[in-house]
Amino acid sequence: MKLIGKALIAQGGGPTAVINQSMAGVIDEARKHDQITKIYGALRGVEGIINEEFIDLTQETSHNLEQVAHTPSSALFSTRVKPDENYCKSIFKVLKAHDIRYFFYIGGNDSADTVHIVSEQAKLDNYEFRAIHIPKTIDNDLLVNDHTPGYSSAARFVMQAFSGINLDMRALSGVYIGIVMGRNSGFLTASAAAAQNFPDDGPHLIYLPERPFIIEHFVADVQKVYLQHGYCVVSVSEGIKDPSGSPIIVSLLRDIEKDAHGNVTMSGTGALGDLLTQAVKEKLKISRVRSDTFGYIQRCFLGCVSDVDQKEAREAGENAVQFALSNSCDGSVTIHRVGDYVVEYRMTPLAELAGKTKHMPDDFINAAGNHVTNAFKDYLRPLLGSNLPSTNRLKAPKVPKILKVNT
Amino acid sequence: MKLIGKALIAQGGGPTAVINQSMAGVIDEARKHDQITKIYGALRGVEGIINEEFIDLTQETSHNLEQVAHTPSSALFSTRVKPDENYCKSIFKVLKAHDIRYFFYIGGNDSADTVHIVSEQAKLDNYEFRAIHIPKTIDNDLLVNDHTPGYSSAARFVMQAFSGINLDMRALSGVYIGIVMGRNSGFLTASAAAAQNFPDDGPHLIYLPERPFIIEHFVADVQKVYLQHGYCVVSVSEGIKDPSGSPIIVSLLRDIEKDAHGNVTMSGTGALGDLLTQAVKEKLKISRVRSDTFGYIQRCFLGCVSDVDQKEAREAGENAVQFALSNSCDGSVTIHRVGDYVVEYRMTPLAELAGKTKHMPDDFINAAGNHVTNAFKDYLRPLLGSNLPSTNRLKAPKVPKILKVNT
Repeated sequence: MKLIGKALIAQGGGPTAVINQSMAGVIDEARKHDQITKIYGALRGVEGIINEEFIDLTQETSHNLEQVAHTPSSALFSTRVKPDENYCKSIFKVLKAHDIRYFFYIGGNDSADTVHIVSEQAKLDNYEFRAIHIPKTIDNDLLVNDHTPGYSSAARFVMQAFSGINLDMRALSGVYIGIVMGRNSGFLTASAAAAQNFPDDGPHLIYLPERPFIIEHFVADVQKVYLQHGYCVVSVSEGIKDPSGSPIIVSLLRDIEKDAHGNVTMSGTGALGDLLTQAVKEKLKISRVRSDTFGYIQRCFLGCVSDVDQKEAREAGENAVQFALSNSCDGSVTIHRVGDYVVEYRMTPLAELAGKTKHMPDDFINAAGNHVTNAFKDYLRPLLGSNLPSTNRLKAPKVPKILKVNT
Repeated sequence: MKLIGKALIAQGGGPTAVINQSMAGVIDEARKHDQITKIYGALRGVEGIINEEFIDLTQETSHNLEQVAHTPSSALFSTRVKPDENYCKSIFKVLKAHDIRYFFYIGGNDSADTVHIVSEQAKLDNYEFRAIHIPKTIDNDLLVNDHTPGYSSAARFVMQAFSGINLDMRALSGVYIGIVMGRNSGFLTASAAAAQNFPDDGPHLIYLPERPFIIEHFVADVQKVYLQHGYCVVSVSEGIKDPSGSPIIVSLLRDIEKDAHGNVTMSGTGALGDLLTQAVKEKLKISRVRSDTFGYIQRCFLGCVSDVDQKEAREAGENAVQFALSNSCDGSVTIHRVGDYVVEYRMTPLAELAGKTKHMPDDFINAAGNHVTNAFKDYLRPLLGSNLPSTNRLKAPKVPKILKVNT
């Protein structure tokens, strides 16, 4: 029997460049099916649900919806709130009152956990509805998925940034340390490797949360590269940890700021970059050492997007509706690489990925733990999308010296 | 009588996204004139000259040259060295030995000063040659010019970054402080204003080196915006100064690092952003306050370029050759806005801009000194180039509440 009622869409966690594509995919697909009577959007994720802050997306024009789909960040706004059981009880009161039978929540592993709790609560309450999680995270840290919407565009940004920085440092020499997002998974930091065009291009070193960070090894690595190439470009994850597993940045910040999920805030401060800069300056006596923390520039930058990412985010949203209507179970839409390059969308039980973190697999990290492997580069390449800009060098030969004043 | 001999091209100072367009413009144009017998490139600016580190650009293929023209950063590498009289005497020995009669130096006001010294030295030495300065700087701080190649692309990057950040902060609330390059001139920091699409979009506040920065006023401004909009996005120049004219960042850095021109290094550290973040957190009790220092990401980002900027950088290079051949004086190629939007390239005596700094004119800054005027937005708009991405919002109406649990 067909489940007839309203659909509700919400967006949770950190925004991405393509999260609105998933929302537009849900709306577009839902409009084609009579059993979905209306499509609501909750403003600010689960917060918007308990506060009944809904907008009627049924009344959104197609053209504007398409423009919003191409706009980065969460058009429905977001939240860091993680519902407990009581919070979920409030959610159900609202869902029932509004006759909402389909719930689509676009988010990361914390949001998947929310969908899972809501789904379980619905069963306990004997309330018939479908709760579907649609993946989204620039960190690419969702289990089961080959990769997640949002990652590929952020990776493209990181790649384009490091391409320019590599040329900048090559022109003026010195050491550059770029701090990239990635609390526990190094996928985004590792994507800087795609900037390596010529064999001696940076990033020459990459440090990930998956391997212990030992500052003496880091300094020795930088020295080696600097002596070889005359400059050194480094990509460092904000989440690098000491051998005990404690994040380096934690010992740096006197007042540790935690979000509602108990996560330490790592972005929005230049402290880690400044620490590493200081270490290189003091120990190697290199005067030109620079660091930037990519921070919030990297996840929603307007106009730097992977078209593959856009397409997949859209399809994930469309598939969510298809699964909700044709499957009689709740779950998460997951992306699976089944060809080179082809993906497939499947329905996965929420318990398999909710609240869990995927890390970089061992074969993506080199033996020294300071760079990636070609296997990772092969994994990343198709995700970055088409029309990827590249860099070139002059090839003109040297002119013989005449005076040789300085030789 | 025609001056016959070789041409030498060099690039100085910080790189830009279009500096190689100017180089390609010189090469392309020079190849059309027999009196220029060969075209050399000096590696690492004036350093490359005294060390005779030349490459023979005459042997560069057209296709590769075009690819390099589209590659950001200085393909001939750069230098921060500023020649004194002795340094210039060494330069002349080399110029004479290689029969170089045309010298094209692409750079900012320090490079213009170098060209000026070299030009004067040539007259003293009675050595017949042409020394031409081609403008380049993301800071847009060259006198006489309406604007300079390199600025428009960096401005486009800053605009696209703030567009994304505005949406990010709008989705999750809080205060964001973006530190943008600009030691003494606020043009680049001010370009964030182009990100304002809807009237309540950020950046809501902009602080420039042209106005004294008083931290109490800054905190009060942030509070006012935050109460009005629920979030606040701020663009701050790295070069903001206290009422005595001393840069805020100087008092923050124990060991002040200066480059060869006596300039304090302001980029490559998150210290200023962290200071302002701390002030807002402590005084306003707002928990979510984030800061990023744009640093080196902004000036050579691969794939974010203004086509207007590309064209003008190219034309500046081409005009440099034309002026060198048809005028019998040295000078700087300057860009003048003569229509809406049309520019003209002129030859300006080096003394008029060498070593000097252009600031934001008063009518580009609002009365409160915390934002720009529409006059500035009108000035900036045509420079950003075509196909500028924009942002959109959902327009769906609110759904009436049923339970009103929380009201």
